[in-house]
Formats: sequence, C-alpha cells, structure tokens
Amino acid sequence: MKHVAIALLGCGTVGKGVVDLLSRNGQLIEEQLETHISIKRILIRDLPKYEQMDLPDTIALTTDFNDIINDDEIEIVVEVMGSADFAKECIEQCFKRGKSVVSANKDLIADYGIPLLKLSQENNVDFQFEASVAGGIPVIRPMYSSLNSNRIERIIGIMNGTTNYILTNMTERGLSYETALKEAQEKGYAEADPTNDVSGYDAARKIAILATLGFHSAVTFRDVSVEGIEKITHEDIEHASEMGYAVKLLAIAQQNDDGISLNVHPAFIPRSHPLANVGGAYNAVYVRGNCVGDVMFYGQGAGAFPTASAVVSDVMNVILHFNLTVTGKRKYVWHDTKLTDPRSIRAPYYLRMIVDNAPGVLSSISGIFAENRISIRSLIQKDETKEIAEIVILIDASADGLVRDSLKKVTSLSCVRRVANAIRVIEI
Amino acid sequence: MKHVAIALLGCGTVGKGVVDLLSRNGQLIEEQLETHISIKRILIRDLPKYEQMDLPDTIALTTDFNDIINDDEIEIVVEVMGSADFAKECIEQCFKRGKSVVSANKDLIADYGIPLLKLSQENNVDFQFEASVAGGIPVIRPMYSSLNSNRIERIIGIMNGTTNYILTNMTERGLSYETALKEAQEKGYAEADPTNDVSGYDAARKIAILATLGFHSAVTFRDVSVEGIEKITHEDIEHASEMGYAVKLLAIAQQNDDGISLNVHPAFIPRSHPLANVGGAYNAVYVRGNCVGDVMFYGQGAGAFPTASAVVSDVMNVILHFNLTVTGKRKYVWHDTKLTDPRSIRAPYYLRMIVDNAPGVLSSISGIFAENRISIRSLIQKDETKEIAEIVILIDASADGLVRDSLKKVTSLSCVRRVANAIRVIEI
Repeated sequence: MKHVAIALLGCGTVGKGVVDLLSRNGQLIEEQLETHISIKRILIRDLPKYEQMDLPDTIALTTDFNDIINDDEIEIVVEVMGSADFAKECIEQCFKRGKSVVSANKDLIADYGIPLLKLSQENNVDFQFEASVAGGIPVIRPMYSSLNSNRIERIIGIMNGTTNYILTNMTERGLSYETALKEAQEKGYAEADPTNDVSGYDAARKIAILATLGFHSAVTFRDVSVEGIEKITHEDIEHASEMGYAVKLLAIAQQNDDGISLNVHPAFIPRSHPLANVGGAYNAVYVRGNCVGDVMFYGQGAGAFPTASAVVSDVMNVILHFNLTVTGKRKYVWHDTKLTDPRSIRAPYYLRMIVDNAPGVLSSISGIFAENRISIRSLIQKDETKEIAEIVILIDASADGLVRDSLKKVTSLSCVRRVANAIRVIEI
Repeated sequence: MKHVAIALLGCGTVGKGVVDLLSRNGQLIEEQLETHISIKRILIRDLPKYEQMDLPDTIALTTDFNDIINDDEIEIVVEVMGSADFAKECIEQCFKRGKSVVSANKDLIADYGIPLLKLSQENNVDFQFEASVAGGIPVIRPMYSSLNSNRIERIIGIMNGTTNYILTNMTERGLSYETALKEAQEKGYAEADPTNDVSGYDAARKIAILATLGFHSAVTFRDVSVEGIEKITHEDIEHASEMGYAVKLLAIAQQNDDGISLNVHPAFIPRSHPLANVGGAYNAVYVRGNCVGDVMFYGQGAGAFPTASAVVSDVMNVILHFNLTVTGKRKYVWHDTKLTDPRSIRAPYYLRMIVDNAPGVLSSISGIFAENRISIRSLIQKDETKEIAEIVILIDASADGLVRDSLKKVTSLSCVRRVANAIRVIEI
C-alpha cells in the first residue's frame, strides 16, 4: 500500500481532532485511497504541555518549523494554528518546498486566499481550506465543483456559532444580551474577549472566502461592511417575534447590477424561512444560483470532530490528486470586482426609538420620513411611562444611506431621546 | 480554446433545461473550463414534436441512436430519458465506445448503479449521476468527496416533491389526502398515475443510490422496505400537530450493529427539527457522520433548471477530468452488506384505532400491548359518536415486527372496528 506522511502545525482543539479522527476512521480512509496516512510530526509551541496529551508515540513533537519543512518525506502540511502572520510564512515555505497544504485558518484565507492559491499553483502543489468556513459543513468544495454551472447571485450565511447561540437563547429563553453572552462564555462557546464573534468580524471573514469562490471575485475581509449584535436587546427580539420574524446575524454576499456587496449585520428574517430555524451553535449557508434556485447547507460550524472532518476530507483530496498525478492542477477564475456602495443597498428596516410621551412627536418623526420619501409600512406606539414612549416603525425597502441620514435627523428632534435600533429586514 | 461535443439522449423537461442552461451560462462555464461545450446531437422519439421546440439550429435531432454512438466527435453523452432498459443499453454502448456518460436516471442507477460504474471504469470513462437524487441539490458528490472522512451512520431524506407537497398542504391548509393529491395533479406536481410517488418507490430509488455511496454498500432499490402515504388522513396530521410533530415521507438508510436497513415510510418528526420545516416541493437530505455530526442539504428536488444545474455540473466535472487526463480514474469502494431484518427495527409508534364506544375496550387493547411488553407512552380516547370511539396511542420504541403482531391481535378483538394507522415516530 502507498503511504503519505503528513505534519500538523498546531495541536489545539482542531489539531487533536485530526489526530483522533485519523485513528478512529483510518481504515475506512485507507480503503478509499489505497494509501496509508501517517502523522509524522506536529509543530507546537510548548513541549511540556503536549507531552501530557494522549498522542500516539509514532508522532514526533517539535517546536522548530525547520524540522518539518526540511523533512522531505512530509508531503502534506495541515495548518491548524489559527491567526497570525507566522501561519502565512509557514504555508508559503511549504509551497516553495513542494508540500501541499490544508488549512482551517479563516483569518489567513479571508485576507490572503488568492495570493496563496496563486503561489500554490506556481509551485504545483494543492492548497485546500474547506474547514475555514462553517466547520464540517461541506460548502467550499460544493460551491466550486457542484454549483459551478450557476451564476451565484447571493450567499447568505449564519456562520458564527457564538452569536447564534446568544440570539437563540435571547429568543427562546427571554435572556438579555448580557446574560446570554455570559452563559456562552461559561459554556465555552464565547471567548473571554468576545469582540471577534459578537462584532461580526468572524462571520465577515467567512463570507469573504465564500464570495471569492462563489462570485469568482477577488475580495477580502476588508471589503465587508460589518455590524455586530451588541445593540440587540430583548425588546427588539420580542418585537421581531410579534411581527413573525427571527433575529439572526447574517453574512450576505450579493451580486448587484453595479457590483457586489458584502455585509454582516443582524437582520429580521421570516420565521418560516429555513434560516430562521438554524438554532444554537449550528451554522447554515443559503446559496442562490441562477439555475439551481435556493440551496442550503446546514450543520455544526465548529468543534474538534466536525472541523477535523473537513480537514481530513481535504487531506484525502490532496492524496487523491497525488495518486492521479494532478496535484496543483485545478484552475480558479477571479475577476477584479467593483463593490456596490453600501449606502445604496435597499432593504426594509425595523426602527425602534424612545421618545417623549407628548403630542406632536409622531407627526414630527413621520414628517422626516415623508420628506425623504421613505414609506412607513407599520407603526406601533407604546407608552412606557407617563414621560416616555416607545415607537416601533417598519419602513418599506429603502436605501441604507437614506435611512441613516433620516435617522440622524430624527435623533436631532428634541422630542426624540434616542434611536434604540435600526435592523434590516431580509425578505427571503 | 478546447472544444467538447456532447449529445443528449432525450429532450424532455430536463433535456431542454440542459440546452437552456448551457446557452444562459455558457460563457461562465467556458471560462472555468477553458473549454467550449457544444451540444451536437439530441436523440428524440418523435421528430415533428421537437422541430417546433425552440432549439438552436446547430443541434442535429435524430431518432437513431446509431447517429450518436457512431459519431466519434461526441465525447460525452447526457442521458435524460428516464426509465427503461433502453437507457441502460445506450449507456453500456457509450462506455464501450469510450464515451463518458452523465445520467439523471434514478430508476436505472438505483437498480444498476454499481455494474454500470464498474463497466465505466473497465472502459476508462466517467459515469456521473448527481441529478439522479434530489435534483439540483449537491449531495452525491459531497457524500463521496467531502463526507468521505466519516463513517456515515444514517441518511434521512425528504426526496419526493409530490408527497411532500401533498403532506404540506394537508398540514397547512387542512386538505384531505384526496383533495391535496388532485391539486398536485392539476398543478403538474403529480402524474395522472401517482403510484410511483405516493407509494414511496421514487424515494426508495433515491435512498438506495445514497446508501450505495454513503455506506459503500452494494444495495439496490429491491433492498428497500417501502410504505407510501396513501393511508395518511387529515386526522393523523391533526393528531401529529397536537403532539408537536410533523408528518413527512422519509427515506431512511441506517447502519445497525447487524447490518444496514433501508426504509421508506411516513413518519412523525419533531416540529422543531430542520426536516419538519422542509415544505412544498423542496427536498432535503440529512446525513449523520461519526465525526461531522448532522449535516443537511436542502433545495429544489426537481424542475428543469435545478436538475439541469446538477447535470451540467457533472458534464463540467467530466471535462475537467478530460483536461487533467484522469477520466475514469476515481475508485469507488463497495462491500456486500447484510440487511437488517426490517421487523427488528425499533421506533416509537403512533397508533390510531376506531373502536366500539363500550366499557372494557381500553383494557382489552392495553392488555395486548402489556402481554407483548410494549410500553404505552400516552393514550387519548375520544368519543366520535355514541357507538364509536377513536383511540390514539403513542407507544415507546418497539420492534416493528412486535408492533405488527400486536396490531393483528388488536384487530382481531371484536370491539375493535379497525386499526386506522400505525406511523413510526422518528426521534431525531
């Protein structure tokens, strides 16, 4: 039987998952590939920490990347270190030394995916990264090898488990944002500093990667307009439920007439839509192709084994390419793409504002919307106290810039205490 | 630019969809493959009928398969005729003449998938059939190229649009089975003779194909135990809703300790489960891998463009293989597999029976279940008239054979008029 030696860079949750998966499913994998895979070396930072781990004796641990890059027997390097320029440097060196790379590193790929893919092709090696988006859910390979007969028009993803866990628990159990976040941190779903997740940056990286492949567009993380869930309150979620919507943090890539738009923001989506029922730490990617219509991929977006499932399936593909002698031969197509001005993107909006409980307030607010030709679909006023009232307005699809300008004017009214929230309604 | 000539066998809904898709997305496809695809010939049955169709002049219509098989320029044959041994014969001839084949023919593949794949490999040609299961939803290729690092433990599919349309409309609009079926026929979702759909045979073919690939098992359509939706009444659906379930026709392939089981039957599934929300003519395939956990693929399971999307993506893969000179080189692994005795499969059951409205009835019925060590989870008796009562029982997970034997005994009780239905509860 043929034999391929691989190395891991990093041995955290995902790295250990890869080790365990290969031991659990090794025979099944070997049978399909007619090739035995062995993990020869693992790069780690701190030897004593890992020596206590339950790793097979056959694996050599090292803190020196040179031990891996200079080992000619190692044909595939699996990069599961996470962020940092060091990963990029290592991957580039691997390519130059003829080693194929599998990476689960969304930070890196959202920023440098295209230059790295180009470098891999120049060096005739494979570069695969299914695990960088939505953990174990097959979505990257299906995008370029199954939906490739379509012009992909739109990709909507729920791709951050932390925020989805928080929003699901705010909805189902009536928790406040703060309590839900605290619980997520206690359960290990959210990090001590949750910014990367709750502010939408994690989801932004994933949508940039999907748009690159789905739209054949050279975009990066920096092209995504990002808004997090920090401002969502229990009141917003209750209003959403009453109106038949769920609140989700969506990552949306869209082809428009004048370019593409990439956005991450909380949104109201109809309760009956499949995306509304993606709960807890699950992820889903909803893709519209011009021929296939709407397709959804759903599953666990994180975790040791689900992520390792995608990593090892990439390793298997690289080995398949070795065996067929087609390594580094898949072509990818990209175009430079104009970005649509985010201010021109139209959507209905849910607006919640806290105002003085006094005559004439409604007329002043609705006057501003009328001046800006924004049409009000529904309006509910609820007295909170004798002095304060809450107004919830649903406006028809309007350009984002116009909505923001109008809200500035609304905020400047002396009778308006604050605009508590403005959330887009995605009518899918 | 390279050039590949293809031929279609058949030009019904899907065939015309392929013609239209290639004209709509031709440029995008060409760019990815660096290859131009042209449809050179189409095999049809009745010339005058198709001469009125809006087909490009460059396509030669023929009623003689020899015109295609003897044309050495044609490298790929797309078989979209549907059932019949003629398709098998044509495909075999194509393989022997070195032509790769893309087929959307589930009937054929559910029966002869493995022998055809073997023949294609002996002749060093490709054989692809993504469109044979769940229309445009990418599921076959992800199963063998993305979930291949997993031992697939279970596949549950809602894969028949006709029955899902009927059940959805019975649920949402309170229609009777007969009315919903009639409406489906009027709208073109169901055929004049709906047997193939409503009896579960169509879904059975699809699950046989998925189990073949997912379980690496040599199974065919004949290994599937099939039960249709004809006996489902509005009462069953109402009871399901009251208990928090939806009724769906499920195709289930499962790896058990003693073999695999393949079943198609109506089932109660929890309302909160993603499969419960797959409505109308949509399809979904829910796969459990031993590492990835649960993954779901969702989309349109039929229709000209969605199905053509899968067919053309297969054609693109075949061309990619041409360009990389790896045609016919992918290995598939199968084992002969023992089938689990269907009578041993355990599930909770919903049972509905019509009985005499008389004292002692409940005690006689519950006595039979007690004798068979079947535990009753809940029981509701509702008087229908002075003479007749309806009893709805939910029993704990019990072996199918035992349930059936017990129901025979129940039916033989003089106080029991009939067992109206027995539906499995799938607790996913």
